[in-house]
Amino acid sequence: MPATLEYCFDFISPYTYLAATQVEDLAKRTGAKLVYRPVFLGGIFKETGNQAPMNIPKKAAYLPGDVQAWAGHYGVPLTFPASFPFNTVRAMRGALVAEREGKLPAYTKAGFKSAWVDGKDLGDLEVLAEVATSAGLDREKFLAAIEEPGIKEALKERTAEAVERGAFGLPTFFVGGEMFWGNDRLVLVEELLKKSK
Amino acid sequence: MPATLEYCFDFISPYTYLAATQVEDLAKRTGAKLVYRPVFLGGIFKETGNQAPMNIPKKAAYLPGDVQAWAGHYGVPLTFPASFPFNTVRAMRGALVAEREGKLPAYTKAGFKSAWVDGKDLGDLEVLAEVATSAGLDREKFLAAIEEPGIKEALKERTAEAVERGAFGLPTFFVGGEMFWGNDRLVLVEELLKKSK
Repeated sequence: MPATLEYCFDFISPYTYLAATQVEDLAKRTGAKLVYRPVFLGGIFKETGNQAPMNIPKKAAYLPGDVQAWAGHYGVPLTFPASFPFNTVRAMRGALVAEREGKLPAYTKAGFKSAWVDGKDLGDLEVLAEVATSAGLDREKFLAAIEEPGIKEALKERTAEAVERGAFGLPTFFVGGEMFWGNDRLVLVEELLKKSK
Repeated sequence: MPATLEYCFDFISPYTYLAATQVEDLAKRTGAKLVYRPVFLGGIFKETGNQAPMNIPKKAAYLPGDVQAWAGHYGVPLTFPASFPFNTVRAMRGALVAEREGKLPAYTKAGFKSAWVDGKDLGDLEVLAEVATSAGLDREKFLAAIEEPGIKEALKERTAEAVERGAFGLPTFFVGGEMFWGNDRLVLVEELLKKSK
């Protein structure tokens, strides 16, 4: 049985975008099954007492150059959205709608591209609807579904579940019982997956 | 002129120990001049509002496994000291004494080995005196010097200077005007040094 690589994400996080550019190839190289896990980073911070990097002024000053350095390292584009920190609660509910419709990987990639390559505001419903349609979802059904009480509740549950499993930030990866935090831990994730191959 | 790699450290930090196991070889590979910069991490956290990882319970739970995974990745030994978080203020003042005596690299390596390989308590003056003598310092002169007002003041000044340059945690590296935070940024440090070689 192939190992499973769970990738917990929220579109708000540039480091999680950076990881998004790598996880698919990493899963292919290691023969792992990649599973996208939508969660809400604001909820994770609230539940764990962890701080968003942007709340520490010196960290906030360091972050943009650091994420560009990683983008250069990977050779991927990165545009810091003018609207950062945009509100991703609807975009992440949308990920659960996409999951229900079997379109989660396409939606995830389209969402990260919209925010972190095109620099668009995912908190804007027009932008979000474009992401959904580009992933093969029906625009009107999607916009209705992200307001469903069951979808709202599901995002809270998924977030709480990630925290219960140990998450305190993003990106978070799970490989079996092992948790890894940070784009910078992909090297360790890959080593573990290669060992268990 | 060779590039300079400044490595800011405090013995308290396991990630800074992990980086200590790598910086010398990295400097050799890239032809950079390695400069050890003693600072006091407690002071950095106080001045920047950043939190020690151990203050966030979920992060504290993750940290020991994460540092062991990095030790495995590098193939270096790591023993989590029973006395963690031990008090390093005298050990870091001692680093400035060692610097004055031209023994800073040897003292730094001996201090990290004592704490993170042998698992000893660097807050214990006996342990610290052993570190100093193994680095070629005179025991009695060293124990007197770490209580000098000028040395106490110097550690505060060095710490404030690092914060002024952008530091908010450790390890912090400076390569010219560029700052890097974290053992996990050594890959970016190496890329930059190779470019400027």
